[in-house]
Parts: sequence; C-alpha cells; structure tokens
Amino acid sequence: MRMVDIIHNKRSGQALTDDEIKFFIEGYTKGDIPDYQAAAFMMAIYFQGMNSQETAVLTKAMADSGETIDLSGIKGHKVDKHSTGGVGDKVTFIVGPLVASAGVPVAKMSGRGLGHTGGTIDKLEAIDGLEIEMSKERFVEIVNTHKLAVAGQTGNLAPADKKLYALRDVTATVEAVPLIAGSIMSKKLASGADSIVLDVKTGSGAFMKTMEDSEALAKEMVAIGNNLGRKTIAIISDMNQPLGFEVGNANEIKEAVDILKGAKVDDLRTLSLEIASHMTVLAGAFSHYDEARTALEANLENGRAFEAFRRFIIAQGGDAGMIDDTSKLPQAKFHLDIKAEEEGFVAEIDAESIGTAAMYLGAGRATKEDAINHAVGITLKKKIGDPVQKGDVLVTLHADTESPENAVQKVRQAYRFSPEPINRPQLIHKVIGD
Amino acid sequence: MRMVDIIHNKRSGQALTDDEIKFFIEGYTKGDIPDYQAAAFMMAIYFQGMNSQETAVLTKAMADSGETIDLSGIKGHKVDKHSTGGVGDKVTFIVGPLVASAGVPVAKMSGRGLGHTGGTIDKLEAIDGLEIEMSKERFVEIVNTHKLAVAGQTGNLAPADKKLYALRDVTATVEAVPLIAGSIMSKKLASGADSIVLDVKTGSGAFMKTMEDSEALAKEMVAIGNNLGRKTIAIISDMNQPLGFEVGNANEIKEAVDILKGAKVDDLRTLSLEIASHMTVLAGAFSHYDEARTALEANLENGRAFEAFRRFIIAQGGDAGMIDDTSKLPQAKFHLDIKAEEEGFVAEIDAESIGTAAMYLGAGRATKEDAINHAVGITLKKKIGDPVQKGDVLVTLHADTESPENAVQKVRQAYRFSPEPINRPQLIHKVIGD
Repeated sequence: MRMVDIIHNKRSGQALTDDEIKFFIEGYTKGDIPDYQAAAFMMAIYFQGMNSQETAVLTKAMADSGETIDLSGIKGHKVDKHSTGGVGDKVTFIVGPLVASAGVPVAKMSGRGLGHTGGTIDKLEAIDGLEIEMSKERFVEIVNTHKLAVAGQTGNLAPADKKLYALRDVTATVEAVPLIAGSIMSKKLASGADSIVLDVKTGSGAFMKTMEDSEALAKEMVAIGNNLGRKTIAIISDMNQPLGFEVGNANEIKEAVDILKGAKVDDLRTLSLEIASHMTVLAGAFSHYDEARTALEANLENGRAFEAFRRFIIAQGGDAGMIDDTSKLPQAKFHLDIKAEEEGFVAEIDAESIGTAAMYLGAGRATKEDAINHAVGITLKKKIGDPVQKGDVLVTLHADTESPENAVQKVRQAYRFSPEPINRPQLIHKVIGD
Repeated sequence: MRMVDIIHNKRSGQALTDDEIKFFIEGYTKGDIPDYQAAAFMMAIYFQGMNSQETAVLTKAMADSGETIDLSGIKGHKVDKHSTGGVGDKVTFIVGPLVASAGVPVAKMSGRGLGHTGGTIDKLEAIDGLEIEMSKERFVEIVNTHKLAVAGQTGNLAPADKKLYALRDVTATVEAVPLIAGSIMSKKLASGADSIVLDVKTGSGAFMKTMEDSEALAKEMVAIGNNLGRKTIAIISDMNQPLGFEVGNANEIKEAVDILKGAKVDDLRTLSLEIASHMTVLAGAFSHYDEARTALEANLENGRAFEAFRRFIIAQGGDAGMIDDTSKLPQAKFHLDIKAEEEGFVAEIDAESIGTAAMYLGAGRATKEDAINHAVGITLKKKIGDPVQKGDVLVTLHADTESPENAVQKVRQAYRFSPEPINRPQLIHKVIGD
C-alpha cells in the first residue's frame, strides 16, 4: 500500500477502504508517512468528503492510536458530554452534578487549553484546594462513591488526532466536517464513555456560524458515535451571544453554583437541563425526556444537585466554604461599569469580542505558559432583546488594573443596538439523534 | 503575508494576487515555506484551478526562481519547440535542421532524463565524438554560424519547478492543468526563446489520454506564453501508437536522418513538417503556413535540411560519416523478429508497452545511474490499420542478449487485432493559438 495512491483515490472521489484509512493513521502516527502527504490528503478530504463508514473508521483509528481509558471499574452506564465551545459556557458545572443527582455516574476528563477563559479544569481551580490530578483508582472510587469526579486529561489520548490537528491548523484544512467530527469523537471514544451528549453551538460566536454547518457537524458526530456503538445525541444550541451573564473563571463558577442553588438564569439553566435530561435518559435513569426533565428541575429546587456538586468538591479536596458562600471565591480589585451611550434594544453581542475582552483582563491564556487570573472577568448586564436607556450599565468588568482600556474597547465593539424591539434568540435549535 | 491564508484563499476559490503567488514561490524555493503547506496548496489548486493571470504569474515566478539563459548574443528570432513526450518521438532531429535550413536560429537545450529511451542528448550521443557540453560563447557561435546547436541543460533552471514537481509526484497533485502547464512553460521561459511551438500529445501513449485534457493543457500553455510575451502555438498530435517505426536511440537517429534525406515515413515526416512550418512562420521567415510548408518540404527533397543537420554534427565534433552511412551507427548483436499469431488488422499498439520493452532491452534508464545502450531498440513493421497475415513480422527487436523474453512479452501485449478493417488514426488533431 502506498500513501500516494491513497491520496489519489480520495482526490478522485473514491471511498477509501478500512485498511487504507488505518494504514494512513498508523503510518502518520509513527512518522512513516510525512506531513506533506498528510497535508495533501487532508485537502483532498476537504474537497471530496468522507462517507459515514470512512469517518467512523478514521475516528476509531485515531482513538486507537494512543492510550484508551478503561472506565470498566465504574458501576453503571457512564455518560459524557462535549461542547464545541462558546463564550460563557459553564454548563459542565451544572450538568455534572445534575446527572449525578439522578444516580448516573459522571467521570469527566477535561483539559486546560488556550482561549478566552480557562478550560473546565482552570475554572474549577478557582476553588481553593481542589485537586484534579489523581490516580485512576482514586478517580474511579470518587465516581463510584459520589457519582461525579473531574480529572485532568493525562496520558497520550488520540495522538494521531493531536498531530493531525496541528497540521490542519497550518494548512487551511480545519474546516472539513468529517475531520472536525472525527477529531472530537476520537477523544470522546478514547475517554471510554458508554453514551455521549454533544452540545453543538451555532451562531456568530461559534466555530460553526450557520445552522446548516452546525447541523452537518452534529449529524456526522451522531453517526460516528452510533456507528461505533456509543449512543449519541447532539443538541444544536445558540451562540449568537455569550451563554449566561458571567464570562471568566471564578465568576462562572459562581453563576453555575447559583443555578445549582435554584436561581433561574434563563438560557444557562434551560440548556443545562436540556443536556442533563438527555444524558440521564441515555443512561437509563429515566424512561423518557419529560420524566427526566421534571425530576432534574426538582433536583435544582430541592438542593440535591447542589449537594452532588458539594460532595464532589469535598471529595477532591476543595474548600466547600467557597461555594456555600460564593463571595469567598477570588475577587478582582476593580469593578468598572460600562454604560450605554445610546438608547434602544440590544441587537447583537459579539461573543468573540466579549471573550477577547476577558482574555485581555487575564481570564484566559494566549500561550501555554500564561497563568490564569481566576478573579477577573466580565458580567453582562444586558443581553439580546433587552431595552436599554442611555446610562444603563451594559457590562461590569472585573479587573486587576484600574483602567483596562483594550478590554473596554472590545466590549464596546461587541454591542449593537436597534431602535426597534428585538426578539431574544431561540436557545435550542434542534436535537439530532433523539 | 501568511502561507496559511494563501492556502485558505485558494481553497475557497479565490483568485490569488500576484504578490501571494510570488510570496509562495520565493518562500518555497528558499525553504521558508515547508513542504506540507506547499502540498496542501497544490491540492487546493488541483480542485480550484487558477485563472490565466494566476498561471502566468506562477510560471514567471518559477522561471525567475533560478538562472535564466540569455540568448541575446544570437542573431534573429529564436524559436523553440517542446513535446509533452511520447514513444518514438524523434521529431527534434528533423525539425531542428528543417528550421535551420530556412535560416531561423535554433538554440536547443535538452536533458537526459529517465524513461523508455534516452532523451534528446542521449540519442545524439549515438553519434561518435558528438560533444554536447560547451561554453555559452561556443554555443552562441555555433548557432550564429550554422543556425543549429544542441547543448545539455546546465545550471539551475527553474529550481522552484524542480522542487514542486518532486513534491507533486508524491502527493497525487501532478494532474492539475495549470501546474503542468506552468511547469513546462517555466523551463521554456528560463531557456530564453522568443517563440515556442508546443507538441501536445494525446491518446493512450500520452500523458494526456483524452482530447479534452490535451486541449485544456494546450490552451493553458498558449495562454501563458502569450501572456508573458512569447508567441506560442500548440499542435495536438496523436499518440495512440509510437511515432514513426523506430523506438530506441541509434535507430531513432537513423529514422530521422532517412527523413532528412527525403524518405517519406508517413506520420513522422508530416508531424515534423507541421511543427517546423509553424516555427518558421513565428520566426518571420515566411509570411504564412502554406508558404513555409512548401519551402520546407523542398528542403527535405533538395538536401538542404540534411546539410543543416550535417553541419551541426560536424560543428559539435560528431562523426558525419555515421549519418552519411547510417549503417555505421551502433548496431545491436541480435535481431529478433516477432511474428503475428493471428490474422486481421492492427487495431491498437500500446505505446507504453513498446516503450517498456525498449527499456528492458537497455535503450532507456530506470535510475539516473543507468547507462544507455545506444545500439538496442525496436523496429515496428506494422502500425495501426495495417492488414496482417499469420506469420507476418510485427516487430523486430534489436537486442544485445539472445532471448530478451520480457521485451518479447511486452511487445506481444502491445498489439491488438481486429477482424474488421481499421482506420489509421488522425495524426494532427488541432492547432491552438495559430
């Protein structure tokens, strides 16, 4: 088998055989196939696509290219969630305890990563003492006892995906649906969950800007999951503005805790309940969505969800006092209100710009070496559809410097107003694979 | 400017700016742009194409990436020819003297190369004493005195093309018309001719198998040439069987010399006259094609064309006795007739298989280090359309071993017969850019 022939076959629009795909992934991981052949191959896939069989085989081969995590020590049906990423997305901190509160085990592996704010792990580290590095035995034990644990991703998960993604990033081949889907799903597969709920974001602040693209990605991922024996559902949710009101690290934990304590923050609570309901149905804890939804809403009201979060924090060494009283979470030195200079209705809040402003404040990392400042962040006071009077506070910046000019400017760029009333965007656009 | 953005622009179907194309060629030649970005870029061009402006700029940038040959010391309008390659193509040995016989200077640079038989230079070296390495001054002097000289390609012509071609070969991106056209034309431009006549082969034995592809390539090359100020014409000629009757080295020289002495070998003579007529018209020696054709046919009859060849051979130190009496050219030890085992009409002669048989005999090189055996080769006795009786000689092999079994087998595979009469293939399909 020669790589040049495999590239040629894909370039000509042929479906590749399982062996051809495995030959590529194995050879590329080992370094036998050079980057230049992989790059031409990725571009050929960009133009010719892959059918569901090819995509499933590619995903499996990438998942098998390194370590795979064995969660068989955990009792019960393990269900995982994944979001394609957005600004203000702290859904994991609500969904994890919610699902655990229904008795379904959640064994969450998360990363740090670069971006506007920290990753799941970084945000959790706003809580003093919380330890995310632990042995596999300890991780399994916490999940078995408390139904929820979060650990940092260790080991060499899907190295083929890591290597390919880095290559795609510099060869303009990121935006190919089978490759994006395979990349996400290979890591989920290697992480060992039995079922997966995907939150595919759509809109100006999402990786996929249009419903069409978002739906294509969602369908592809659901097909891969089901093809490889994992029950998979994808929710397409709106990312035309940040999710919830808080963007940062400690303040995002606070917002999640508020909801776990029963607060009714509109979009964030709704999306969390939607995802958690599907997860618990997939796990078999409830027989259908409505039953799950009713039970989980009750668990937000009756304190069980918060209690599940609290037990997890304590089990991993965290200071529960900081979530009992979220004012004890890290606080920034300065709080700067940005006020409306015109009146009207909020028409747009560019999530990308809000995220960048948060990064300017120190909430995220531009390079791997950067430290996260857990205290800083942004609180939105007005969201799309809200009426605004001149002088109303749009946003409060939590900063450790007195006048964070570049962040202020970014926030101002993010808001657009309309003289006419504006509808709030629909939050849940579609559920695929239900 | 970032290469990833240039790849992205092409991938999205945009026309690239002149600066983007130059940035790529300069960066890639210097090694600043890595092979993997170039490979993804080539594949994007394969799918999205390039317009005539882009292709011209690419070609010019490749021509400018290394040395360019200054032929300004040669008096008169310099006209070059190029063939996309086929089996039995010894047209250069006829066209060169023909054009020279009309007083038009032909300064031919040729290569050796790998393949079924030797390149132009290798074939000429069948003539004892002929020297193809010489100073530029001597080359110019021979052309000025005798109107014809042939020199080995020296120096670093179009290194960007050399590097890109090697990459395309292993990334399944050879077959992109703008890239093929740019590759050929960049070397022609760097070689300094004022006008160019291209012989684009079409058919089973050609790089381009279909008329559609051949015409697309011809049009692209003509557009590039004219775009960059070189008068360019392309002839699309048939390569559904070897050209002429001889395939090898010394025997190809012999066939060419026979034609220069007035022999009427059908397809070879006709194509040579066609090419030479266009060349002399482009050079201004004749006012139109018919005038050129009549004059050049006369020069084959009256000995002027042969005399031009003879003067060139002597000027470059060759033994003219070997062309005066071609039986003095290197001769193989054995001559083996391959006879028809059935009767009918010759329907196909796979040029590729005939070429491979010639290489098996030792007429070509499989690797750069191989030596050429000038004496061996193949003489076709039957061509497409010829009636054949059982026992008729189809082919004579000239070999230095007594039973060259693999060559015999390849020749047998090449021939297909039909019980019904078969038309001879049309030789000249089209002239582009006239």
